Amino acid sequence: MPVRVSVIGASGYGGAEAVRLLATHPQVHLAHVTADTQANQPLASLYPNLRGFVDLITEALDPAAIGGDSHLVIVSLPSGKAMEIVPELLERGTRVIDVAADFRLKDPAQYPEWYRFAHTAPQYLAEAAYGLPELHRDAIRGARLVANPGCYPAAALIALAPLVRAGAVRREGIVIDAKSGVSGAGRGGRSGGFAFADTNEDVRAYGVPGLDAPGHNHTAEIEQELSDQAGGRVRVTFVPHLIPMTRGLLVTAYAPLARPLTTPDAMALYREAYAGEPFVRVLPGQVLPQTKATAGSNFCDVAVRIDPRAEVAVAIAALDNLGKGAAGQAVQNMNLMLGFPEDAGLRVPALYP
Amino acid sequence: MPVRVSVIGASGYGGAEAVRLLATHPQVHLAHVTADTQANQPLASLYPNLRGFVDLITEALDPAAIGGDSHLVIVSLPSGKAMEIVPELLERGTRVIDVAADFRLKDPAQYPEWYRFAHTAPQYLAEAAYGLPELHRDAIRGARLVANPGCYPAAALIALAPLVRAGAVRREGIVIDAKSGVSGAGRGGRSGGFAFADTNEDVRAYGVPGLDAPGHNHTAEIEQELSDQAGGRVRVTFVPHLIPMTRGLLVTAYAPLARPLTTPDAMALYREAYAGEPFVRVLPGQVLPQTKATAGSNFCDVAVRIDPRAEVAVAIAALDNLGKGAAGQAVQNMNLMLGFPEDAGLRVPALYP
Amino acid sequence: MPVRVSVIGASGYGGAEAVRLLATHPQVHLAHVTADTQANQPLASLYPNLRGFVDLITEALDPAAIGGDSHLVIVSLPSGKAMEIVPELLERGTRVIDVAADFRLKDPAQYPEWYRFAHTAPQYLAEAAYGLPELHRDAIRGARLVANPGCYPAAALIALAPLVRAGAVRREGIVIDAKSGVSGAGRGGRSGGFAFADTNEDVRAYGVPGLDAPGHNHTAEIEQELSDQAGGRVRVTFVPHLIPMTRGLLVTAYAPLARPLTTPDAMALYREAYAGEPFVRVLPGQVLPQTKATAGSNFCDVAVRIDPRAEVAVAIAALDNLGKGAAGQAVQNMNLMLGFPEDAGLRVPALYP
Amino acid sequence: MPVRVSVIGASGYGGAEAVRLLATHPQVHLAHVTADTQANQPLASLYPNLRGFVDLITEALDPAAIGGDSHLVIVSLPSGKAMEIVPELLERGTRVIDVAADFRLKDPAQYPEWYRFAHTAPQYLAEAAYGLPELHRDAIRGARLVANPGCYPAAALIALAPLVRAGAVRREGIVIDAKSGVSGAGRGGRSGGFAFADTNEDVRAYGVPGLDAPGHNHTAEIEQELSDQAGGRVRVTFVPHLIPMTRGLLVTAYAPLARPLTTPDAMALYREAYAGEPFVRVLPGQVLPQTKATAGSNFCDVAVRIDPRAEVAVAIAALDNLGKGAAGQAVQNMNLMLGFPEDAGLRVPALYP
Repeated sequence: MPVRVSVIGASGYGGAEAVRLLATHPQVHLAHVTADTQANQPLASLYPNLRGFVDLITEALDPAAIGGDSHLVIVSLPSGKAMEIVPELLERGTRVIDVAADFRLKDPAQYPEWYRFAHTAPQYLAEAAYGLPELHRDAIRGARLVANPGCYPAAALIALAPLVRAGAVRREGIVIDAKSGVSGAGRGGRSGGFAFADTNEDVRAYGVPGLDAPGHNHTAEIEQELSDQAGGRVRVTFVPHLIPMTRGLLVTAYAPLARPLTTPDAMALYREAYAGEPFVRVLPGQVLPQTKATAGSNFCDVAVRIDPRAEVAVAIAALDNLGKGAAGQAVQNMNLMLGFPEDAGLRVPALYP
Repeated sequence: MPVRVSVIGASGYGGAEAVRLLATHPQVHLAHVTADTQANQPLASLYPNLRGFVDLITEALDPAAIGGDSHLVIVSLPSGKAMEIVPELLERGTRVIDVAADFRLKDPAQYPEWYRFAHTAPQYLAEAAYGLPELHRDAIRGARLVANPGCYPAAALIALAPLVRAGAVRREGIVIDAKSGVSGAGRGGRSGGFAFADTNEDVRAYGVPGLDAPGHNHTAEIEQELSDQAGGRVRVTFVPHLIPMTRGLLVTAYAPLARPLTTPDAMALYREAYAGEPFVRVLPGQVLPQTKATAGSNFCDVAVRIDPRAEVAVAIAALDNLGKGAAGQAVQNMNLMLGFPEDAGLRVPALYP
Repeated sequence: MPVRVSVIGASGYGGAEAVRLLATHPQVHLAHVTADTQANQPLASLYPNLRGFVDLITEALDPAAIGGDSHLVIVSLPSGKAMEIVPELLERGTRVIDVAADFRLKDPAQYPEWYRFAHTAPQYLAEAAYGLPELHRDAIRGARLVANPGCYPAAALIALAPLVRAGAVRREGIVIDAKSGVSGAGRGGRSGGFAFADTNEDVRAYGVPGLDAPGHNHTAEIEQELSDQAGGRVRVTFVPHLIPMTRGLLVTAYAPLARPLTTPDAMALYREAYAGEPFVRVLPGQVLPQTKATAGSNFCDVAVRIDPRAEVAVAIAALDNLGKGAAGQAVQNMNLMLGFPEDAGLRVPALYP
Repeated sequence: MPVRVSVIGASGYGGAEAVRLLATHPQVHLAHVTADTQANQPLASLYPNLRGFVDLITEALDPAAIGGDSHLVIVSLPSGKAMEIVPELLERGTRVIDVAADFRLKDPAQYPEWYRFAHTAPQYLAEAAYGLPELHRDAIRGARLVANPGCYPAAALIALAPLVRAGAVRREGIVIDAKSGVSGAGRGGRSGGFAFADTNEDVRAYGVPGLDAPGHNHTAEIEQELSDQAGGRVRVTFVPHLIPMTRGLLVTAYAPLARPLTTPDAMALYREAYAGEPFVRVLPGQVLPQTKATAGSNFCDVAVRIDPRAEVAVAIAALDNLGKGAAGQAVQNMNLMLGFPEDAGLRVPALYP
């Protein structure tokens, strides 16, 4: 009997991508999809790609009803909303993957600092597994609550973890420069939509630290997880940029070397770190990551180089922000939690060109 | 034992898309991939999405060797090249799907007129099945040679066939205006590549009839097949346009009514014509086709409206020019030829957004 | 002393483009800019390209105050809003160019049919000059109220007028297929914004006649003006399409021939019709219009071909929907009305690439 | 009598943009345009935006003839070609602006290291003025040979010079992450063209230091000029990225603080550094640079922030790579050299949207 899985927040890009993946997943029955502001219509009228695959009608959000009828729920709501419903889901015995930020940070004090809200369910922060299988596979397997990483942290951590864990780079002075397609901002966009005419033929930074904010809120989870890998406090400067494409996210990370290291040695370190990983491809030879090689897939492509003149490691990672950066990652975590093959429903090459 | 299938011309966009689909096809073993000008390298170095899926090295073209080692070959070469090798493939007992135009036209005299070359293997034109299952499913099943439709004709025929077959529109005065993403021009482009900077933020017509050519060469097969449906000679004016996107093709066809017809009656005609078709979706209500709903998939979405003021039927079809317009179509034809489920390896929703 | 000109509705793309052109116009002083929903902020904070050129603060709409302090006002509001304020502007002696549709149609009965509102100032329809200088230059010069053409009609009329005026094509069976960048939908978009992620890599038709509407409302002015040129009623089927670019509009018009005509004769007809026109370029030889050749400029490029097989004329026109399709056109009209050189402030080549 | 100016290499994007600017420049007569591989055709057939503005026929390259008939020549050839002809131009008394890299580096030994060729005219390196007016205005005025900056260095130097000159940041550990539209790669692209289908919906790094090269060759001039500003050797890690847009370049530079500094103090430093500059806009308040605000213009927009957590300055600059990054910059330098107003022919707002 297939497992019953529901998606809360299916009208957003991330939720709809989860639905797309679940619709052809061999072991899953898609039970419910919710869309509070666009309830009571065929989901396929919002996402025409799903026509012929998903007949479900969007429901208003009723955590008790959905929790009671689902083995696992993927929650894809704006940050600050999941913490209001996840406790009820968990109490009904449903397992939960939260695609937003509500359970990613271990220290509740970081929520007011980075997200400008106080956490209302801090008792769940300790048990939540940080859902990056490359770092926490075992914890994810057994967790009832998994906090899916942010799209930027997913790429930044895959890019930097091997160097940080090995102590090859310093814990200060790390710069993470990220470039993302606009679907990462969600269907409504951050402030009412990224209109095509304003976004096309444009690139800009946002979330830059310096005036009235400490920087983009993904900084917090990047530092938490890198510190965990390093065994000591890591500081980064993180600046994301919006570029005119729909899907795709590239992180270029610069880390001052802590000890001499050559490019071939660094590349060997990455091959070893990701040997056996089903969705991380360490690129060989002169090949560098490009987002198009990952579009529509769950892959993260990664490469590392050493700049010997400046004694800096440059690590680059590419992924689809809706794939390995959100919904694909959630399905990978679901597969781990439910004991399915880790790549079930996910072993699909990217669309190219 | 899986069936051995090869792709000749795998370095082009159409050939590479066929490889992408075959790489995860449950009943197929991908035997050979050729790329004459880029032979002897991993195909994944040309198409980075295939890394981890396809380990094959591109081969130079040797029809005898490939034909002898393949049950079926998909030939994806520029028009005029397939006719040079298809006879040898057929003589070795291999079945062939030609993605180019070499076997689409029944009348050999049309090749000099529309393609500017004389056909060198006209004896195969009669037996070749025109590979649009919605019109010729039975012939495709039994054929040893299938001529895959052009990307524009695939959409234009699905858009117009129900009206033409029913005699609801006149055989003259039909206008077909098409808009295509630039991957349709192939990897090299028609004349040395469509550079991003020249193509982005631009739209233009090409292949317009009127000076030194009769028009775009796809006109010939559109008229051939519409005439076949009508039971009498059909004339069309066909003008394709290049628009700044990678994948996707939309046809808007305008046909003068032969008799009074309402929009609801026309819509019913389409629902009936395509009932049971696995890859044609007749859109309901106010919904109109959009290419994004088909990107990366094998679907063709279609809708019809009647303009009562002008007494004109407007039929619109959208598809992915590399999917239902080329490689997806080829795999659908392969499934029919080999007795597989018609949607094997193809039942995947489009990527959206 | 420079002439005082104001722009009502300067926060929209069309209004802001008018401001951009007026900011460097040698004979104009930009007096007021209004933006009802975004009043009281530097216009340069909405349009960062204007920083260093325009210091004006957006004002709330006060027709009496603006009319009393402006020799001429360009009104760039949504259709149905201009008719509420234009009478007051005219009564104060201000001359007016309406960029929207409120004064384009001569017959007030067409407003309920095509725009779904009753006209509240029908007494001004007769005197309003239809602001396409290529057809109505003398009337524009003397008018106190000019109705700027719609972006689609501007291109469609330049494409078809010579053929229709010469009686070379039939008055029925004309098909106009148009492709526009999304800035044509305005800053808010028609229904809440065209988000990049939904619009990129997509093409779709809209405003198709057939279900609950007679078609796109620009059909009415196209038929009005073509009928005027023909000296008898002309019917067209008009279908616009949205394509993934910011600026640019291409019309491909198909007209059944009324009498035999060759491509060279048709081309000569166009060269003659537009000889001396400062902003229409009849393209020579094999060259076809492309929108990129007009981006940011006030040019309309046009070409014509005859399809001898189908006996159909194909006329193609390209322009920038915010240039010759809106704001550039408005400035050209302003130059005529105020006795400036017709190309003052407008003689700038397009940006390419 | 207008000054006679010629453009060598007018078929490339940079050369054609120079022609576009010179075509409407009030004090210049455009004398010759060359295009070696596309000689003897109207330049307007290559650049359709120039139709009606430039009637010149492209010539083959004859330095003696062109030098003898031009007061000033803008040379826009691939790096390594200008040094072959500039000596002859100078010897004929013609003043020269080289848009490529041949005269940017003071130390001839850097050419083999960064450009892989030996310099054949090193005797001119000392006298060549580095053509960034914000740093070397007086030298440019009097120079007979000006080396126009690279597109990346133009932005990087405007972004970093105030901090470096003030000693506010360290001379090591500076990271410069750049994102450029593809027109920066030139018309042919670096290796045979950036096809739309391969480039759209993609972002990738290139020129990354680490395997067989020291990094992108623009690194050399960035370090040369920053070192000059600092009064001591500056080291940077520079990584450019290609993003799917035509024009526009954004630099995000990260520099470790040498002493405590607040964001407001840093912003004041920039306002002071660029007070009176006609083409640098220091953005106020919360506003950050975006390339669309500069498209088609000669402006560079810049902003600075301090990340107090990491003690890093983040400086961001945006420009049009064909404007302030190439041809606009060249015209600004020409104006200085010829004693014209510095903004002659250049005071035009960007196109937005």
